[in-house]
Amino acid sequence: MAGRTVFVITDRRVRGLHGGLLAGLEERAQRTSWLTVAAGEAAKELATAERLWRRLLAAGGKRDSRIVALGGGSVGDLAGFVAGCFLRGIEYVQLPTTLLAQVDAAVGGKTAVNLPAAKNSVGLFHHPALVVADTRCLATLPARELRSGLAEVIKMAALLDLRLLRRLETDWEKLFGGDPEAWAPVVAAAVRAKATVVVADPAEAGERRLLNFGHTLGHALEAALGYRRLRHGEAVAYGMLFALRLARRRGMPPADAARLRRLIRRLELPPLPAVDRGEVLQAMGLDKKVRETGAVWVLPERLGRGRVVADVEPGELRGELDTFLAAPWS
Amino acid sequence: MAGRTVFVITDRRVRGLHGGLLAGLEERAQRTSWLTVAAGEAAKELATAERLWRRLLAAGGKRDSRIVALGGGSVGDLAGFVAGCFLRGIEYVQLPTTLLAQVDAAVGGKTAVNLPAAKNSVGLFHHPALVVADTRCLATLPARELRSGLAEVIKMAALLDLRLLRRLETDWEKLFGGDPEAWAPVVAAAVRAKATVVVADPAEAGERRLLNFGHTLGHALEAALGYRRLRHGEAVAYGMLFALRLARRRGMPPADAARLRRLIRRLELPPLPAVDRGEVLQAMGLDKKVRETGAVWVLPERLGRGRVVADVEPGELRGELDTFLAAPWS
Repeated sequence: MAGRTVFVITDRRVRGLHGGLLAGLEERAQRTSWLTVAAGEAAKELATAERLWRRLLAAGGKRDSRIVALGGGSVGDLAGFVAGCFLRGIEYVQLPTTLLAQVDAAVGGKTAVNLPAAKNSVGLFHHPALVVADTRCLATLPARELRSGLAEVIKMAALLDLRLLRRLETDWEKLFGGDPEAWAPVVAAAVRAKATVVVADPAEAGERRLLNFGHTLGHALEAALGYRRLRHGEAVAYGMLFALRLARRRGMPPADAARLRRLIRRLELPPLPAVDRGEVLQAMGLDKKVRETGAVWVLPERLGRGRVVADVEPGELRGELDTFLAAPWS
Repeated sequence: MAGRTVFVITDRRVRGLHGGLLAGLEERAQRTSWLTVAAGEAAKELATAERLWRRLLAAGGKRDSRIVALGGGSVGDLAGFVAGCFLRGIEYVQLPTTLLAQVDAAVGGKTAVNLPAAKNSVGLFHHPALVVADTRCLATLPARELRSGLAEVIKMAALLDLRLLRRLETDWEKLFGGDPEAWAPVVAAAVRAKATVVVADPAEAGERRLLNFGHTLGHALEAALGYRRLRHGEAVAYGMLFALRLARRRGMPPADAARLRRLIRRLELPPLPAVDRGEVLQAMGLDKKVRETGAVWVLPERLGRGRVVADVEPGELRGELDTFLAAPWS
């Protein structure tokens, strides 16, 4: 960053809480410009991206200017998209301040904004030059935010890292309480697990799709609920719970399914809001992971091993979904 | 394309003239959807891209849907950008119908839309899966369009392919008249020259920058003239003419400079419109190839060999520009 113009994209609240993390950077950069956007998903709009591009141009932004994303997953997704398309791509740095962003969103190069018809429908793969995850940020994180990130850690642990799964089980209380020291090795392990998969399959053609465990139904629930009521990780947790139903029907060992279910239960999720089955199914049709041949599911064969399944019949899906939406823990 | 949904992005006039090229495709695709945009640069707007993304979503576009760009460079740039950002990137095919697009724009993966402050300022590198250049399209091309493309061919020949340069000199009359048969080997050679450079340097960090010969001033002229009066290739031709001034001051052999100058003269360019020097210099400051250290020039050392020069002093630039803008052929 030394000698560059640095544009920091963040929201007002995060700047107040964590802006100090950038003190050293501000001294070394030639010029630091702060660009404030709305908090949360509201920032992920094409109009916001356009406003930022115009401001970058007006402020003399060039190909060797740099963007820093300071905030949660939404700021990171937006800032990565803005960096990826500005002058056909400039470098950016992720400074994730939420758990969800630290363990998942900031790593892997996925960037996007939303359109009304579908979340993350406009974006690109653009990897950050650097990701700095400081678990001290987690101490100020609201409980639901922490839970949302923890759901993604469970997701990665369940299919990719059984040691991490055991650590979650043993350190659960400290983690659930947001203890930065307990989190440091867990964030490191989650990032390592994700980075390994992403490096092996950057464009999400194969193994990387395992990271979508819980996301087929999770995204659909979020969409059907208008992206209110459930946080992303909470929806993914319900998505994993549903995926376990499909997985058990395909031979997942009952003990493995029960163990994962117990961990999901410890998230103390809010109740699943009433949601229309038709809207959930319709939302699946617009999920960007869908191919023309139908929705794709990531299901555990057993703990530590997942696979991508494309042959879930509409009849089976509707039946399981009816039961699940009425009583998700049944 | 077999069995896929194919979205053809084109403009009304091109569809009328060349839509027949897609007859075979339409038979094999599962479904073909025609999306019409404004002709020329007017299509390259973020609002147009957004409208297309919404239509793709509404029509059930998925990750394995395909986009076909049928038209000139503007349609190709827009369609490539739309494909590159839709669901984080879907495949697309370039069917360039203008000379400029066939020899240059369709190859190399550059996609973009314009913002009011700077052309092509929002975009990404997204390579087409396939480029099909049919020189029969050139027979219907207006003379200025042909000239504009021919300027880009001269650009590539001068720095990358001396055999092509000789062919331009010998076949000039046929080429200038739009003869499809004379053009076929020239388009092939130009695409080969460009593809070789692009493969060696996809992200434009080194050798690929040679393709910007004539573009530093060319882009600035276009911008200062509000993208009216001069076509892109015409502005590039004037840009090469100006670059020759800087190159001669740095030791380019006079005979080489004179030979290239003669070829540029055969383009029968329209007179250089009156344009304000200050606006040209300001436009250079917004060119996306500019780094924070200043504008970058591509200058021939001799025919067949170019280099990137970053140390043109403002004083030299202003002096040469004054002379050039008053009498470009002096």
